[in-house]
Amino acid sequence: MKMIETMLRSHPHADLQRSEAYADVLNALALCGQICTSCADACLGETEHLANLRRCIRLNLDCADVCQTTARLIVRQTETPNELIHSQLHACVLACQLCADECETHASMHDHCRVCAETCRHCQERCNFLLGEISASGVEEERADLRPTDSPPLSR
Amino acid sequence: MKMIETMLRSHPHADLQRSEAYADVLNALALCGQICTSCADACLGETEHLANLRRCIRLNLDCADVCQTTARLIVRQTETPNELIHSQLHACVLACQLCADECETHASMHDHCRVCAETCRHCQERCNFLLGEISASGVEEERADLRPTDSPPLSR
Amino acid sequence: MKMIETMLRSHPHADLQRSEAYADVLNALALCGQICTSCADACLGETEHLANLRRCIRLNLDCADVCQTTARLIVRQTETPNELIHSQLHACVLACQLCADECETHASMHDHCRVCAETCRHCQERCNFLLGEISASGVEEERADLRPTDSPPLSR
Amino acid sequence: MKMIETMLRSHPHADLQRSEAYADVLNALALCGQICTSCADACLGETEHLANLRRCIRLNLDCADVCQTTARLIVRQTETPNELIHSQLHACVLACQLCADECETHASMHDHCRVCAETCRHCQERCNFLLGEISASGVEEERADLRPTDSPPLSR
Repeated sequence: MKMIETMLRSHPHADLQRSEAYADVLNALALCGQICTSCADACLGETEHLANLRRCIRLNLDCADVCQTTARLIVRQTETPNELIHSQLHACVLACQLCADECETHASMHDHCRVCAETCRHCQERCNFLLGEISASGVEEERADLRPTDSPPLSR
Repeated sequence: MKMIETMLRSHPHADLQRSEAYADVLNALALCGQICTSCADACLGETEHLANLRRCIRLNLDCADVCQTTARLIVRQTETPNELIHSQLHACVLACQLCADECETHASMHDHCRVCAETCRHCQERCNFLLGEISASGVEEERADLRPTDSPPLSR
Repeated sequence: MKMIETMLRSHPHADLQRSEAYADVLNALALCGQICTSCADACLGETEHLANLRRCIRLNLDCADVCQTTARLIVRQTETPNELIHSQLHACVLACQLCADECETHASMHDHCRVCAETCRHCQERCNFLLGEISASGVEEERADLRPTDSPPLSR
Repeated sequence: MKMIETMLRSHPHADLQRSEAYADVLNALALCGQICTSCADACLGETEHLANLRRCIRLNLDCADVCQTTARLIVRQTETPNELIHSQLHACVLACQLCADECETHASMHDHCRVCAETCRHCQERCNFLLGEISASGVEEERADLRPTDSPPLSR
């Protein structure tokens, strides 16, 4: 069992049925945060292609920030605000998707972009899976209360 | 003019018409990040009411993390991914709203919760305003491309 | 009185005599974190001089991270670990100094570097002042306990 | 080979002889950041012993912040400021040591504190090892230039 899963399971109000899914996401997020920080820096170090890597660096930096904050929210299991987790996960899926899409266009030329694209894609999938789990378990009702009154429900 | 606005306007591709609105949001986010970190810590230092402040501490910590990441994305003006900014701002509005709601319930007893509630509410409003600005300027079209194919459009 | 000072003073174990000094440092750190994130991004957007701004971007990113973490430690007033605050402040003084030094070399060409250099220098001075205050009030004794046994005391 | 090591080695100016040592530290820091965030939250969820866990929560939060910032600085290999890395690593060793010391006092009662103490101790050792490596390779000379003129040299 992974260290972070052991940790989640030792929480006084642990959600034991979800510990493995949460641990998978947390490992993916921790790795993605570091790999994106590394890809931004490796791109910055490129001598010939730096100007073509602007968008890549930008999205790397955003993705690193979003992954680390998303991980912090998911790690916490005390008084969990499901609707906020849902919304932050949604932003994280987008951040990973945009970064993976951009890195893939440089993957044949830069190994760091190839590794980063794979890591972001894996993280996107893990986050998307958890998003589905949380939605299925009834965050939709909560969301109804928080949604501005003039906006229609997301699913019919 | 605020320092951060001067800075935003010195960017080689500055969006001069939005600099003031962005600067307002960035100041609100910077303050809210610190005030929430402070409120979590002040709650932790309370001797008699600590157990009643669990949810407050949890939401303070989440809100601080979300505000700081949201600010980093908004500060950046190179190759801006509007859809991601939109999604992260949405998470931030929720984080501020939840934290303000909870802090308000302790405001008569703890001054730190009263100040924190006011700060979160102001930040929520600033973020919500910017969210409207960005939506109005056409992030909706971009969003259509990024949305998973099996999900219906948000408005018809 | 600044909002963050009001907040620090509402802490159940507030250090009232230091609230103003702490608030000054916290405002400087919050601004410096955002300005450095902005300068890294503005440098990234420069068309002709990007390759000359590598070191500037690197130091901007480091300084932003260090300032935000330092601020979080200083905001907290419950069970303060003085020796850690001292050590983190020391790293922060260095981060600001290195970033200011580098930005100054580009100040005549890029306004964002000029503003960033000034902001970092101000933050360096505020942190250095607080470092002196903390040292004077006896962190040296604590440090003696934590220091590896083979290293001599810093001052006698 | 670990993913982060593959990544570090793909950097255009990779320090191939140190990649493994850096990857070890980065894995330890990523884990320690998440475990400390988790321990703070698990302590917050404890029903009977919450008041005794104040110092633990405080040090958990500090350690998580310091580990994540330290990791970001170490990940970056472009224009590395050795003196800053050295100083930030020093703060990180202290943060891990203080947190491990405190968590150990609760380890027999709370499993999350036991796991956190082990994780922090491992991270402290990895950071301390890297600190030795960097010192040995001559950061001391650099440091001499940066040190305030009124402060005596660290070693005689």
